[in-house]
Amino acid sequence: MDRITTDICIVGAGPVGLFAVFEAGLLKMRCHVVDALPVVGGQLAEIYPKKPIYDIPGFPSILAGELVDNLMKQIEPFHPTFTLGERVEELDRQEDGSFIVRTSEGTEIACKVVAIAGGLGSFEPRKPAIESLENFEGKGVTYMVRDPELFRSKKVVLAGGGDSALDWAIYLAGVAEELTLVHRGSTFRGAPESAEKVLTMAEEGQIKLLLKSNVTDVHGNGKIDSVTVLIDNKDEYKIETDYFIPLFGLVPKLGPLENWGLELEKGAIVVNTFDYSTNIPGVYAIGDINTYPGKLKLILCGFHESALMAQSAYNIIYPDKKFVLKYTTVNGIQELS
Amino acid sequence: MDRITTDICIVGAGPVGLFAVFEAGLLKMRCHVVDALPVVGGQLAEIYPKKPIYDIPGFPSILAGELVDNLMKQIEPFHPTFTLGERVEELDRQEDGSFIVRTSEGTEIACKVVAIAGGLGSFEPRKPAIESLENFEGKGVTYMVRDPELFRSKKVVLAGGGDSALDWAIYLAGVAEELTLVHRGSTFRGAPESAEKVLTMAEEGQIKLLLKSNVTDVHGNGKIDSVTVLIDNKDEYKIETDYFIPLFGLVPKLGPLENWGLELEKGAIVVNTFDYSTNIPGVYAIGDINTYPGKLKLILCGFHESALMAQSAYNIIYPDKKFVLKYTTVNGIQELS
Ligand SMILES: Cc1cc2nc3c(=O)[nH]c(=O)nc-3n(C[C@H](O)[C@H](O)[C@H](O)COP(=O)(O)OP(=O)(O)OC[C@H]3O[C@@H](n4cnc5c(N)ncnc54)[C@H](O)[C@@H]3O)c2cc1C
Ligand SMILES: Cc1cc2nc3c(=O)[nH]c(=O)nc-3n(C[C@H](O)[C@H](O)[C@H](O)COP(=O)(O)OP(=O)(O)OC[C@H]3O[C@@H](n4cnc5c(N)ncnc54)[C@H](O)[C@@H]3O)c2cc1C
Repeated sequence: MDRITTDICIVGAGPVGLFAVFEAGLLKMRCHVVDALPVVGGQLAEIYPKKPIYDIPGFPSILAGELVDNLMKQIEPFHPTFTLGERVEELDRQEDGSFIVRTSEGTEIACKVVAIAGGLGSFEPRKPAIESLENFEGKGVTYMVRDPELFRSKKVVLAGGGDSALDWAIYLAGVAEELTLVHRGSTFRGAPESAEKVLTMAEEGQIKLLLKSNVTDVHGNGKIDSVTVLIDNKDEYKIETDYFIPLFGLVPKLGPLENWGLELEKGAIVVNTFDYSTNIPGVYAIGDINTYPGKLKLILCGFHESALMAQSAYNIIYPDKKFVLKYTTVNGIQELS
Repeated sequence: MDRITTDICIVGAGPVGLFAVFEAGLLKMRCHVVDALPVVGGQLAEIYPKKPIYDIPGFPSILAGELVDNLMKQIEPFHPTFTLGERVEELDRQEDGSFIVRTSEGTEIACKVVAIAGGLGSFEPRKPAIESLENFEGKGVTYMVRDPELFRSKKVVLAGGGDSALDWAIYLAGVAEELTLVHRGSTFRGAPESAEKVLTMAEEGQIKLLLKSNVTDVHGNGKIDSVTVLIDNKDEYKIETDYFIPLFGLVPKLGPLENWGLELEKGAIVVNTFDYSTNIPGVYAIGDINTYPGKLKLILCGFHESALMAQSAYNIIYPDKKFVLKYTTVNGIQELS
């Protein structure tokens, strides 16, 4: 089991986590960066590496991947270390106020400050509150349509009223043996044209549409064979089906960080704006993962947050020195070992 | 007299004022930028255009002048207009909540929002509290040595104990007919070597040194002819002189902005951190000119501030529309006319 010792453990190697290494390095603080993904760059590397970003100050246009490369080059003098492909799971506060951070693979990082730059965390589907639902996951219950062919000539029950539910209802109606769309409301939240289309297909018998309805139970022996639908809050029907697909959108999940005792608001970590500290002394949250009045989930905002975070962390790591702002133009960059 | 109409009047064409044009433009708000200097770029253009900056995110190194050029290119699609070489002096709030901003040359800008990005304001000399002093400005009293030759074979009284006073005392002792240095303390704040040198020159009779002394009055008929010096808080002397040069350092001055009714703290404009608004509704302050808990006078912080400012200004300029954050990567840049 690895044990790494550093000044600041940065959770997340997105643009904000990377730039935090720079701001820390300017103040002579060493950093270790952990990311669950096997590569650095966060959303920029995972979702849109080849897309140009236009609102990075000083770059009329820069490819997301190029920005990540530049940031890696910018932090080079401070020789950060990385643990990639491991998820940060546990935080242990030691008696002296320092921390042990533990990953999914058991790697331990001993540090004085933790800076959470975990972005949106991981996206997970919003699940309806049906008691036995989780027992049938992978056994006919799924929250995502990856390969529509899976449903060819099968009976499918879809639930939801947004774009995703409408679009898949239209598509799968032409693939499945029987498609039922269950929606709690009487109108749809999705695009008007899609809603129109679904209503027409229902009239023509291509889609079985149940409005003002909810799936309340799931049945089967090992594998799903039927669901219970409550219509208009009074009539209960049992519908035979091979698949049940609730499509209620995605919610970002903090995952293991949720159990650290951090103050949360809508899945984001609450910080104050003078140093982006959380309610746990020594733990900061920067970038997309934090929230405060006026918060914008923009890269350039995360950069600012990491500068103020570093200034505050300095007081923890060098309690006897007074922080004095020095311009890089005047003082240059001193390498860290 | 010019009257310009725009959405946001930006006071100051430093890096922060320029980037504010970009953030405003993304939200379809037009900007007019005013600067007292004849060029854009603020401190970067005036003080260190050829120096590399190392802490602009994404640039391992960039010349200050180059950053300004890049910012000008980045805001091009939004066609901002500029009034350069004119100082913003007056702010008139109209009944409907909009503003008329007036410059030193009488140019008027009608706008719904004012974003002050005035940096450090303008540097002005700190003046001693001598009642009749201002009457003699330009008539023997000056706060800056521009051309030492002016003082050749003249009698000069210098006041101050910092580097500037020491350095000029040493230099002017070799130029002036008689040089008197008046200093309120008994030791100097300036560099020890300079202080040493002044003391030696005083012993050798090249400098008349009056410690624990203050100039308390200035006399003359149209032009200065003598000053009163109070020594050790008890003895008063009159010293004949052609020039009196108080060198008590420079203080950044907000200048005319000081009379706008803005809440100030140590020469900076107090703002809140959710939108960088001031105590005057519709007036924002961003960049070096503002202050709030945790404030760092860094370019990258000003960039963040301008993004949150623009978001808030949007509610004033488009009161009926709801602000929705759109990524540039997804939506691109729409030119403004
Ligand atoms: C399509 C798209 C376009 C965008 N366009 C723009 C744009 O034009 N301009 C702009 O400013 N922003 C844009 N954004 C938003 C921008 O990408 C984010 O603001 C930015 O990525 C936030 O950076 P971050 O470092 O805070 O988080 P992220 O980039 O999300 O990185 C967080 C990292 O933390 C890791 N992580 C999370 N939890 C853990 C854990 N427990 N253990 C280990 N690792 C963990 C994740 O794996 C991830 O790599 C866009 C986003 C998308 C999706
Ligand atoms: C030597 C030096 C090195 C530096 N190095 C760095 C560094 O490495 N990194 C970093 O982040 N920062 C650095 N800085 C600080 C950086 O320059 C400032 O943070 C930045 O310039 C602030 O930008 P701004 O747009 O707020 O103000 P400024 O750049 O000061 O621009 C303000 C503008 O407003 C104008 N103005 C003021 N009042 C009025 C008025 N009433 N009417 C009209 N115009 C007005 C001024 O003329 C000026 O052009 C350095 C500063 C100096 C002096």
